[in-house]
Amino acid sequence: MHSRFLDAFAVGDVFMTRAATFTESDIVDFALKYDPQPMHIDAHGAAAGPFGSLIASGFHTLSLSFRLWADLGLFATTNIAGPGLDEVRWQKPVLPGDTIRSHCTVVEVSPSRSKPDRGILKVAFDVRNQRDETVLTYTIIAMLRRKPESAE
Amino acid sequence: MHSRFLDAFAVGDVFMTRAATFTESDIVDFALKYDPQPMHIDAHGAAAGPFGSLIASGFHTLSLSFRLWADLGLFATTNIAGPGLDEVRWQKPVLPGDTIRSHCTVVEVSPSRSKPDRGILKVAFDVRNQRDETVLTYTIIAMLRRKPESAE
Repeated sequence: MHSRFLDAFAVGDVFMTRAATFTESDIVDFALKYDPQPMHIDAHGAAAGPFGSLIASGFHTLSLSFRLWADLGLFATTNIAGPGLDEVRWQKPVLPGDTIRSHCTVVEVSPSRSKPDRGILKVAFDVRNQRDETVLTYTIIAMLRRKPESAE
Repeated sequence: MHSRFLDAFAVGDVFMTRAATFTESDIVDFALKYDPQPMHIDAHGAAAGPFGSLIASGFHTLSLSFRLWADLGLFATTNIAGPGLDEVRWQKPVLPGDTIRSHCTVVEVSPSRSKPDRGILKVAFDVRNQRDETVLTYTIIAMLRRKPESAE
């Protein structure tokens, strides 16, 4: 898809990303660097634990689900900055072999009052596994450029 | 530090993590996997951009600042799950060579009413760089075990 200025998004727009699969080695590699809790790195201990296997770090699921959105290219050249995220909720564990997709819905489009060249886009993410179960939800806040015409 | 049950945390407790430094290769490696926007991977383009250099993906700063907390070991053996994050706000860019620490303040300790063996811990993160500027703030929500005695 082509990169879009803020003006080309409308509340209610829905975008579906491609899928990505978590391997055990991806899960362990990420966790060793960023979240070395036993449930993410100790395969033997995790096999006897509540999930029967390792589970992915929530920060890994979050980062990879955002990558899927980035690959849509919707704001590749129009994104100025990422001010934040709201209400990140890990709803179900992600295990090795699980495949996720992000279902992304535009929930706010707000041109800036003080800076006419930009505005805020909010997108709600519903990240689902191969059984269509929601594993993670969150909302991104992005600052996008507006169409040059509207800035004049 | 030793791992703590929920009961050993009190609102207002403050914990300071060790520091960690972002290298340009760390920034690019993370971004190629999880956030391949030009500002994180195109060193030549970024040199001519608003920051004069690459900047770290916000998901990288978030993940690494959590790693610093995990290394304190405060809930290494008592953490049941990570339900979520609230109000993630990237306040300033993080550049190659920048060093961060997480200043962590306990803001809520809530024993579960329905399950006496556990409860919710909320910790507010203030992630600062080597100039003591806040680069990122967020609150984690963790589900921790309670002391076995209090569950009986």
